[in-house]
This record gives sequence, structure tokens and C-alpha cells, in this order.
Amino acid sequence: MRTKILTTILLVAVGIARPQESSGQEDDGLWRKASTTHRQAEYPKIHPDGRVWFEFEAPHAESVQVRIAGTSYEMEKDDEGVWSAIVPYPGPGYRSYVMVVDSLVVQDPQSHMYFQNGWASVLEMPSPDEDFYEMKHVPHGDVREHWIYSDITESFRRMFVYTPPGYDDSAARYPVLYLQHGGGETEAEWTHAGRANFILDNLIAEGRVVPMIVVMNNGFVTPAEGRPQPPQNQGWIAFEEFLLDEVIPDIEANFRTIPDREHRAMAGLSMGSIQTFDIVLGNLDMFSYLGSFSPPFMAVGPTVEEALTMGPEVNDRLHAFWLSAGTEEQSIYDATTDVIERLTEVGIETDFYESPGTAHEWQTWRRSLYRFAPLLFQE
Amino acid sequence: MRTKILTTILLVAVGIARPQESSGQEDDGLWRKASTTHRQAEYPKIHPDGRVWFEFEAPHAESVQVRIAGTSYEMEKDDEGVWSAIVPYPGPGYRSYVMVVDSLVVQDPQSHMYFQNGWASVLEMPSPDEDFYEMKHVPHGDVREHWIYSDITESFRRMFVYTPPGYDDSAARYPVLYLQHGGGETEAEWTHAGRANFILDNLIAEGRVVPMIVVMNNGFVTPAEGRPQPPQNQGWIAFEEFLLDEVIPDIEANFRTIPDREHRAMAGLSMGSIQTFDIVLGNLDMFSYLGSFSPPFMAVGPTVEEALTMGPEVNDRLHAFWLSAGTEEQSIYDATTDVIERLTEVGIETDFYESPGTAHEWQTWRRSLYRFAPLLFQE
Repeated sequence: MRTKILTTILLVAVGIARPQESSGQEDDGLWRKASTTHRQAEYPKIHPDGRVWFEFEAPHAESVQVRIAGTSYEMEKDDEGVWSAIVPYPGPGYRSYVMVVDSLVVQDPQSHMYFQNGWASVLEMPSPDEDFYEMKHVPHGDVREHWIYSDITESFRRMFVYTPPGYDDSAARYPVLYLQHGGGETEAEWTHAGRANFILDNLIAEGRVVPMIVVMNNGFVTPAEGRPQPPQNQGWIAFEEFLLDEVIPDIEANFRTIPDREHRAMAGLSMGSIQTFDIVLGNLDMFSYLGSFSPPFMAVGPTVEEALTMGPEVNDRLHAFWLSAGTEEQSIYDATTDVIERLTEVGIETDFYESPGTAHEWQTWRRSLYRFAPLLFQE
Repeated sequence: MRTKILTTILLVAVGIARPQESSGQEDDGLWRKASTTHRQAEYPKIHPDGRVWFEFEAPHAESVQVRIAGTSYEMEKDDEGVWSAIVPYPGPGYRSYVMVVDSLVVQDPQSHMYFQNGWASVLEMPSPDEDFYEMKHVPHGDVREHWIYSDITESFRRMFVYTPPGYDDSAARYPVLYLQHGGGETEAEWTHAGRANFILDNLIAEGRVVPMIVVMNNGFVTPAEGRPQPPQNQGWIAFEEFLLDEVIPDIEANFRTIPDREHRAMAGLSMGSIQTFDIVLGNLDMFSYLGSFSPPFMAVGPTVEEALTMGPEVNDRLHAFWLSAGTEEQSIYDATTDVIERLTEVGIETDFYESPGTAHEWQTWRRSLYRFAPLLFQE
């Protein structure tokens, strides 16, 4: 894409109401490529004041919009067929966006991609008050792509395993957090979009968490033919057997873990939060920490009913029963606070974190991990 | 995307001449999703006879083509606005493709993406006679995302490190292959598009290679302000200093290596092949194996002139001086065979592999690694 500076850009906000930018923007020399703009591209650029400058080449298009954070912005074409728009701050963290070219939704080839219900263009927006997930000048753990053969699926499956800084230099054994993605993601996104490894690196450097191994698997498990099958489209249910019978034994055979319930935690986001809720409460001999980030409880009632029957015994078994939701994911927020109320009524103690101003998105889950991890394995 | 079966598909081949498919294709139940079609999509599908069935939803478009392997194929729209085409076998391995919608080039959201001069849709096509890079039921090494702080760039840099199966269970020390990508890729693509880890896993399982560590870095290095700068747009030149002064010491400190020239090899593709040529021949005290895959020698004459002055002494120092090119990348093939001829004239011995029917593409480089790796570290 070209690097020519446009001297006049007209921005028109459409869709959900947003403050309009004034026309007549000039390049003031402060625009910088986003960290998610790849090395052979120049745009999107971000201004220190939070605005984002998009460009998209489509000489034959009759209209192009950029759609980000629920709003579509009209772009304006220059003489060379390049469309531009400067849009207001779309909020912090990982922002999906698309270009809409004459009503066709397409990805922006200039930005990195991540997997969220398919490959999507992403813009990493700085957050004025947060840098806990940034790569800092501290020791960094490795993230391993690790393969396991599953007898359940009769196939090899990939997982990602974070080992903390110093893992290879020592003979120490470590506790383990099993960390799950949501229904739209893969096993790669907790370290990619979620930056789980940098969050842990930073917390370890500050001495705020116990160095731990973090294991991230794909939450969809389709048992091989001839084995019991989960209900249609609910491959996530078969994950429990895979985790307990295959993943944990593999991790404990191949990594230096402390293999007891006191040193095993599980957390997950969205679909993964429900898996965590089910698996931890159903296997208190295996886990002693539970983290449910953005749990869509409104869709999975029976699980909660079962938890309610357990009563205060859960308090003695769990060192953390921790839930979170973003203030902008209303139905999940309401369902979560409702479940917490019902758990409280039967004497089950929980902790709740609300992520201000964020929805069902990675910034909610980055913040949740950052607050959940320091609670783990503190003896 | 929908899964409805089309009963009539018309295919028209345009661009470079190719055999046209007959119209009136029927679904015969043998079509299977490509391995690169993501889990929430149904197309592209591949037939056992090698044909590929593409679909693309664009209800308002006036024309859509799929462009693959140098050929554009017209797609045909159904009543629901979904465009389809069945195209002939596009060749084996990793195939980039795009959709052209009313002259706008876009990616196919149904396929996985890889990085090649930006993010691109990819189709993994089976090869009738080759499975050396497939994931097989053999032990698998880990691939680690490993971070290093560079004083040269004053930033953290990511590398990928393959450790062979059994690495964590033993106290053994291993030789190291430093393996570089080309100008269009990143440090991730040798294990992603190139499947270097599976190639090594398979060769190790067959007892055909010495178990080794493979280290893959980003070949572009931009020194921090105040340090000597490489010529404009030639960031790859500063890679030598980074590799020798920072990467190798880091690897030898953090992994169980055999830290001498006899147990160090370097190979690379395209831009990485030139880096390999320069760095190995310039540092024969550090390396004893050289692999240049698809070297664009026509663009980098001076390097070769320097090699020519070295004469037969090189033969005693290198256990392998190995070059390769695809038969369908004519200018690189010609330049490589020309350089080999000139090296031979001055008494320098080389080995050459030509990859039949492949161009400047991953199938050439997968095949090259498969043939180069067994030559290494055989004592």
C-alpha cells in the first residue's frame, strides 16, 4: 500500500451514534503504525489521542466503510482509488474490524489476523491506564507447541504450554493452570490475542504470582467413531474426558509439575468458563481453583443447579471460586451476578470481578487472567 | 457458509491456459474439506482426483473469480448469492489463492491464512507421491516460541525453536540447525507453512537424521538508532551480527547444544539462502554445513565472487555445500546452476537438488529440507 500523506480526509460516522471527526485532518507527524499493522504495510496508524487512520485500496468500489467496535464509518476515495477514514478511539485492546466494500465484508490485508469465528483483521489499541499485558523488559517464558495423541479422537491434537522463565535451568516442579478459550477461538488465542504469556511474565517479574505452567488446549473434542458421542454441536462436552484422561497425564509425564489438586487450577473464558465450572466442581479431587471468565450461564442452567446442591462444602475444597464479566456484555453480566446471588444464598462463597467498559472481548479476559493468576498457589 | 449441494456448476478457465472442467458436476459424496478449511467452514473441498471446489458468498457482486496457481477461474452465482467453481488440480502443497470480486482482490474467510508478503488464504493440496511432511503417528518434538532481548535492535525478538522428541526426558546434548525463511515470510512460517517440525519428526522416527535442535529467527534486523545501519531496505544484512552475537550465545546458554562448528548447520530459503551462503562461508569457524534453497543469486553477485576466491579449501571445511531450486522457478534455477558451474570451475564441490514441477514455493522448500537434513551431523 502507498505511503502518500493525504491532506484532506472527510469522516462521516454512521450506524451507532459516535462523535464525528471534523474534516480537514492534517498529518501532524504523530501517527504511528499499529503494532498489528504488518511489516509490509503502513496503515492502520494510531494517533496518540487514540484516533485510528485506516486506508484501503479499492479503485473500482463505489463505497467503502470500515466497521469497528459496532460502528461503520464511511471512507473517502482519493484520485488513486485509495479510501481513507480517521475514526475515534474504538476502545482498548484487541479490536476486530472489517472493511465493507459495496456491501461485501472483507478483511484488511494490512493488519494481522486472529481466529475468532474465522480469521479476522485485528487492531491492537493501546489502553491509557493498562500495560500489564505488554511485552516488557523482563524475563520471558517459552510457549511450546506440544502434540499429544488422543485415543478419544484417534488423532494428534495440539496444545500450547507456557513454561515460566527459568524452567529449563532448574529442577524445580511447578503448579499448573489449565486455561481454556471460548467457542469462537482455538488453542492458540490465549497466548496470541490474550497475551497470557506476557501477563504471566510480568506478574512473575513483579513477584506477584507463583511461577506456574499454563496449559492451553482446544476445547472442541469429537470422539472417534464407535465411542460415545456428545450431543450434536456440543463437542465441548467431550473435553472433560480428554482433559482428565489424556491431557493431565501427558503434562505430568512430560513437564515438571506438582501433581496434586492443591497445585492444579482451571480457568476459561465463555465456553471455556462453562467447561471450567463443570469440570472443577465435578472433580474437586483434581482441582482446587476455579476461574470462570464471562460465563454464558443463561445458556447452561443445569450445571448451576448441580452446583447449588453442593452447598458450603465447596468453600472448603476451593481456594478460589472466581467469576468475572465485562460491564458491556449485559446478558452475561446479569446471568453471572444472578448465579453468584443464588450461590451465596446456599452458602457458597465466590469472588466477582467486573471489567469496566468492556464486552465479550479479549480485554475482559486479559484483565480477568491478570487478577485471577495472583490468587493461585499462594500457600 | 452453507452446505447446500449444488447440482450444476459451470467452470470457465481464463488466464493462463488450463484444461477446462466440464459443466454439470454432481456431488458424488467423495468431496472432503481441505485441511486448511477452518472448522466453521465447509469449503474449499478437495476431490480424491485432485479437483478443488470453491464457494464464496457475495450476493451483490457482478463477477467473482478464484485465482490459484497463476490461473483465474470464473465462478457462477446461485440464487442465494453464493458463487461456486470446481477447478483442476492446482499442484501439490501449500497453494496461495485469492478471490477477485468485481476486480477487488480479497482473501477467502473460509481458509486458514499464512504470511507471505502479507496475510494470504492458503489451500493445502495433497501430493500423490509425498507424505514426508504430514503429521504421522510418530513421536513429535515441541516447537517453542522463545524470546530474546537484542541489544542490536533494543527490542525483544521472537524465535521458534524445535526440540526433538525426548529432549525433555534426557540429559543429551544436540547439534543445531539454524533455519531461515525468505523475504516474504516471518520466523513462524518454517514450522507453519513449511512443516519443518513434522519433516524432522518423521525423519527422526525413521532413524534417517540425527536428532537435532532447529532454530528459526526472523531474518530482518533493524539496528537501533546510533548503531551502524544496513543499506536502505536491506535489513537482512544486519542479521549476521544478530545471529552470531546474540542468537547463538542465547541458544547455547538455554538449550542443551553441542557448541562447536562440527555441530552447527545453517540453511535458508530465498533471502534466507543468501544469508546462509554469506554467513556460513564467512564464518567457517562457526559452521560446517550450508544449505541454500532457491537462492536468488542473480540479485546478489558480489557474494558469489567472494566464494569463488576461496577455492577448494572450502571442501575441507564444509561437510555439505548443498543447493536446490525448483524446476519451475526458471531464473533462480538458472542462476543456481550457473553459480554451481562457476564454483566447480574453481574446484569447490557442491550438491544440487532440483525439485520437479515446483516453483518459488513451500513445496520446493519442504522437499529441500527433507533431503538436506539427513546429511547433517552424520559422524
